[in-house]
Amino acid sequence: MKRGFGSDNHSGVHPRIMEALLAANVEHAPSYGTDEWTEKANQEFRRQFGPDAQVYFVFNGTAANVTALRAITRPYQSVFCADVAHINVDECGAPEQMAGCKLIPLPTVNGKLQLAELEKAFIRRGDQHYSQTQALSITQPTELGTTYSMDELRVLIAWAKSKKLWVHIDGSRLSNAAYYLGKSLREITADLGVDVVSYGGTKNGLMMGEAVVFFNKTLAEDFKYIRKQSSQLPSKSRFIAAQFLAYFQNDLWKDIAGNSIGMARLLYEEARHIPGVEIRCAPEGNAVFAKIPQAWVKALREHYFFYVWDENTFECRWMTSWDTTADDIHTFVKLLKELAR
Amino acid sequence: MKRGFGSDNHSGVHPRIMEALLAANVEHAPSYGTDEWTEKANQEFRRQFGPDAQVYFVFNGTAANVTALRAITRPYQSVFCADVAHINVDECGAPEQMAGCKLIPLPTVNGKLQLAELEKAFIRRGDQHYSQTQALSITQPTELGTTYSMDELRVLIAWAKSKKLWVHIDGSRLSNAAYYLGKSLREITADLGVDVVSYGGTKNGLMMGEAVVFFNKTLAEDFKYIRKQSSQLPSKSRFIAAQFLAYFQNDLWKDIAGNSIGMARLLYEEARHIPGVEIRCAPEGNAVFAKIPQAWVKALREHYFFYVWDENTFECRWMTSWDTTADDIHTFVKLLKELAR
Amino acid sequence: MKRGFGSDNHSGVHPRIMEALLAANVEHAPSYGTDEWTEKANQEFRRQFGPDAQVYFVFNGTAANVTALRAITRPYQSVFCADVAHINVDECGAPEQMAGCKLIPLPTVNGKLQLAELEKAFIRRGDQHYSQTQALSITQPTELGTTYSMDELRVLIAWAKSKKLWVHIDGSRLSNAAYYLGKSLREITADLGVDVVSYGGTKNGLMMGEAVVFFNKTLAEDFKYIRKQSSQLPSKSRFIAAQFLAYFQNDLWKDIAGNSIGMARLLYEEARHIPGVEIRCAPEGNAVFAKIPQAWVKALREHYFFYVWDENTFECRWMTSWDTTADDIHTFVKLLKELAR
Amino acid sequence: MKRGFGSDNHSGVHPRIMEALLAANVEHAPSYGTDEWTEKANQEFRRQFGPDAQVYFVFNGTAANVTALRAITRPYQSVFCADVAHINVDECGAPEQMAGCKLIPLPTVNGKLQLAELEKAFIRRGDQHYSQTQALSITQPTELGTTYSMDELRVLIAWAKSKKLWVHIDGSRLSNAAYYLGKSLREITADLGVDVVSYGGTKNGLMMGEAVVFFNKTLAEDFKYIRKQSSQLPSKSRFIAAQFLAYFQNDLWKDIAGNSIGMARLLYEEARHIPGVEIRCAPEGNAVFAKIPQAWVKALREHYFFYVWDENTFECRWMTSWDTTADDIHTFVKLLKELAR
Repeated sequence: MKRGFGSDNHSGVHPRIMEALLAANVEHAPSYGTDEWTEKANQEFRRQFGPDAQVYFVFNGTAANVTALRAITRPYQSVFCADVAHINVDECGAPEQMAGCKLIPLPTVNGKLQLAELEKAFIRRGDQHYSQTQALSITQPTELGTTYSMDELRVLIAWAKSKKLWVHIDGSRLSNAAYYLGKSLREITADLGVDVVSYGGTKNGLMMGEAVVFFNKTLAEDFKYIRKQSSQLPSKSRFIAAQFLAYFQNDLWKDIAGNSIGMARLLYEEARHIPGVEIRCAPEGNAVFAKIPQAWVKALREHYFFYVWDENTFECRWMTSWDTTADDIHTFVKLLKELAR
Repeated sequence: MKRGFGSDNHSGVHPRIMEALLAANVEHAPSYGTDEWTEKANQEFRRQFGPDAQVYFVFNGTAANVTALRAITRPYQSVFCADVAHINVDECGAPEQMAGCKLIPLPTVNGKLQLAELEKAFIRRGDQHYSQTQALSITQPTELGTTYSMDELRVLIAWAKSKKLWVHIDGSRLSNAAYYLGKSLREITADLGVDVVSYGGTKNGLMMGEAVVFFNKTLAEDFKYIRKQSSQLPSKSRFIAAQFLAYFQNDLWKDIAGNSIGMARLLYEEARHIPGVEIRCAPEGNAVFAKIPQAWVKALREHYFFYVWDENTFECRWMTSWDTTADDIHTFVKLLKELAR
Repeated sequence: MKRGFGSDNHSGVHPRIMEALLAANVEHAPSYGTDEWTEKANQEFRRQFGPDAQVYFVFNGTAANVTALRAITRPYQSVFCADVAHINVDECGAPEQMAGCKLIPLPTVNGKLQLAELEKAFIRRGDQHYSQTQALSITQPTELGTTYSMDELRVLIAWAKSKKLWVHIDGSRLSNAAYYLGKSLREITADLGVDVVSYGGTKNGLMMGEAVVFFNKTLAEDFKYIRKQSSQLPSKSRFIAAQFLAYFQNDLWKDIAGNSIGMARLLYEEARHIPGVEIRCAPEGNAVFAKIPQAWVKALREHYFFYVWDENTFECRWMTSWDTTADDIHTFVKLLKELAR
Repeated sequence: MKRGFGSDNHSGVHPRIMEALLAANVEHAPSYGTDEWTEKANQEFRRQFGPDAQVYFVFNGTAANVTALRAITRPYQSVFCADVAHINVDECGAPEQMAGCKLIPLPTVNGKLQLAELEKAFIRRGDQHYSQTQALSITQPTELGTTYSMDELRVLIAWAKSKKLWVHIDGSRLSNAAYYLGKSLREITADLGVDVVSYGGTKNGLMMGEAVVFFNKTLAEDFKYIRKQSSQLPSKSRFIAAQFLAYFQNDLWKDIAGNSIGMARLLYEEARHIPGVEIRCAPEGNAVFAKIPQAWVKALREHYFFYVWDENTFECRWMTSWDTTADDIHTFVKLLKELAR
């Protein structure tokens, strides 16, 4: 299949991660998370996310989000999230069905939650007729390629804590945010008071595998049952653990994030001045959102696949990945320029 | 880690399946089941299971069972299953929570459902106070290493059909049953009138991946939403599809099943006459259930891990796998004989 | 307790309905809906709602809504409703938890759904990542005391039908809408193509009891199980049926609706010109929404209880009932005028 | 309709309870449990059940059970109950669907749970694959008309407490048990260490209404949301509270229980020696279970309705009520004797 900017999950597995899978394929290992790879991965996560991190592997991103929400809410409680959040519009109602809880989507600016909207929506405490908000879910980076700054995070989390809400990060691309902000994973989660993170692997060069990372022991107490009951306990767990071990080894995660973001920036810089191309904002992650003339879409897609994000405005999403090359960008930009002529 | 007879999910990935994963790791592929590997796998499943087979990949066995049950029941309906069925005692209540439905566990003989028990339990049709039974779930082979004969299957399925129940097969090791019975996968499912199968890969040499196979178009109609909402839609789906393609190529599945069953039989033949060893029945799959003196357990486990199946009787489960060798068996039997002296 | 305009469920039971309860309290009657009162009530509902009406009694309004939604959706489907709809903001997440489905709240004007918003929100058909909208829930009259006109209903329902959505009416005060529009219950439901109605009794002079009325046999087919499983099958069902029989006898429902609406109109006419009183719109039901100076609230409430609807704007809701008297209105208006001086 | 022994919910409302309903039907009262009748009823429940009792009214028995189970379990937990328990076989799967939890039905003797069975079933603690048992549900009196003795209760509850299980009583006829045992309601619940009771009204002379009574503040903490989300918050709550107030006033509950049990005993004494009538055991509640020749059923039912409990053995259930008279018994016994001739 042709290369493209469709999604970071269109890419395959990073060679070093594939090597780790091969290396883990030896002899027998106990299943369901009791193997030595999983034990080592637990240690590695504590190194990356701080000593309180408790990690549980699951299969995919929806699962990481839903099981995390099951751990921090009861069905009569609700969760604030962005209107464009994956949990709200891309998970086929999984949070509502599997966790039972209610989502309260809030208006965003470039994908980011606004404090004023949160404050306005935090109502009817103790009113038995109203689903009681119990958690704030922040997507970092956002669905629109933006990244909350450290200050923005501090403000949102402090507000949530003042209201006794749990803070969840949907971080299927959290590594990109850490890289962009120049921070460690711990600094953008545990150190800020986050309670639980959905930490993504699949979109960042793994074959499959995500991690639910808790920083609060009480919340994690029964999580093994929640994971199992949600059909998310991997039997041959070593093959997820081994991937994450490779992902962290020699800071591979930074190489991957660095390339993804770097290529998005390159695309932005090269494309921003092309007449007809209207880019939403400078990329703070691995996606560029651009409005282009409708007629261009088909022509471009013949060479590089990508999604039209908004069918009305023809805003498109160009997503880079660990394997995007400068050559990809230059060829694509050349096409854009030809169309713009 | 030491080798053992703990479970077929303690084994790693079969080399030919690992090769297929490497081969699939090229360039970009569209995600969520639209890639060419998945398309080829669909064709292959139709070859194996008959032209009506519609296949959906999921991550693990619990998921295959729960999503299949979601497709064939409504929450006010119930499912007949064996008292020892995985869905009843090993899935942490996932069917009840995720599908909402009720399980009605029935007494079994050597893990097999009995027609008389089914008939006795099929009551109160149309009574609004009683969860209406809508499906029969058959585990093939059973949890106790036995395999329903073709006649046994015909009787159970004919009865279910006469009562308008859907028939589900929990087949995490279904390949072993096909091999044992000398039948194709189609002959033991579609041709018998089965409606949906949970078809296992992980326990049979795959890294991870199971398939939900429908033979009834109407039942499958909305399944893509059920799968997604149950957090079971793989994004890099090529890596599950590629494994199954390799599993079917050149009948690798028969080699794997053949070795697993062959080794179980070898163990049975070699161990059955050892004084102190009391084997439940001749293996019809890849497990031998044997009562041994309590004192032997620790000594044996120092060399080969296995599970005590019943803490009261000290019946143990010795499970073989694609990678079990005759050498494993002989060494283990030697240990048994030494203990028996 | 003092009289007031708090809610129509602050009123007691209409004397003629209480008489019917007394009259039904004779000898034995079979339970769970098989009594003769229920049979007669079924006939009466067919007279009121048309020959296709199938009625099921439940205990309260939340139950009527949730069980109706369970009948017309699967958990991977969603329901369009008003942002201010009872199902969205006053049922503590019951639809999400009990039906599993997702609500998609839409912006409204004076409580009314807008066709343009529906059209904008009807997206991503067939996309497995997106909860598929399957129903439209219309609150009639709305939470803001307005009533959809026949034309407005026709437009919304025609649109829903063109999209193959089921149409649900949350009609806890539907009798008021029928009275206001000068139509029969049938004309504003079955004749317009509505599929299922939550028809209220409790707020209209009954002690307790609501009805789920289906106009589509297929949808109702399994409803008895849904009702029972939702804990909504009344055992001494004659005592709900008898109330509805009295409610319809000699058009008592029109007397009750007539008084409720008449008193709201009287209040509106008397209060609208009082300086400081700012009324949202002429009442089309039994509620008047009025902004008044914050300082007045406490003084008024000493004599007549009512709710502040919006804590920010001090818009208040004055709700009339079957037992509101012209004397109540005049006394209250007198208080308002005194405060306005 | 003819009188009978069908169920205690075939009877109507006790006159003194109907009077209380009439008396409560004055003026306005705040809704949703904030009225003065509910406040007084709360006090009365504390008098009857002890000072720690916290009471929440719901509509019916299934609701009382399901909401209680929601309060004491999480979906990955299970509940021990009798195989014949109402929650297991007469609630259409409501506990599984609404609470998400799993029921583990255990074999009983005359409807009573056996310690040995509980001990055998209390397995796999901490095993993530197994739904963790968190509660014991005891039906008192049992479905088979027997009543646990104080000693039997003490043994079961002590065992449950030693295993850190919550204890729930399904007491839709708990008053009968208290009367039979000659104990107060407190003595057979709170004083024994029970955590939560489903306390029945409907089967004991009320029109409708049950109470969930907690003795543990922590468990009750969020119950108001659970009740509301389960569609069980009565709006005109005074009309349930007033019934319970009358039920307790001047120990009306004892009159009702006394008559019900007395009539069952009378029936037992009069019928036990009739040839062809085989009675299971002396009634310890308001039901007599008797096997009679199949041919008698139709003839008897022409005069007095009752249910055949077991379609295979023709064991019948004859249930008495607050309004059963000695005349009813004598006439029925006369019919039996005629058939026996």
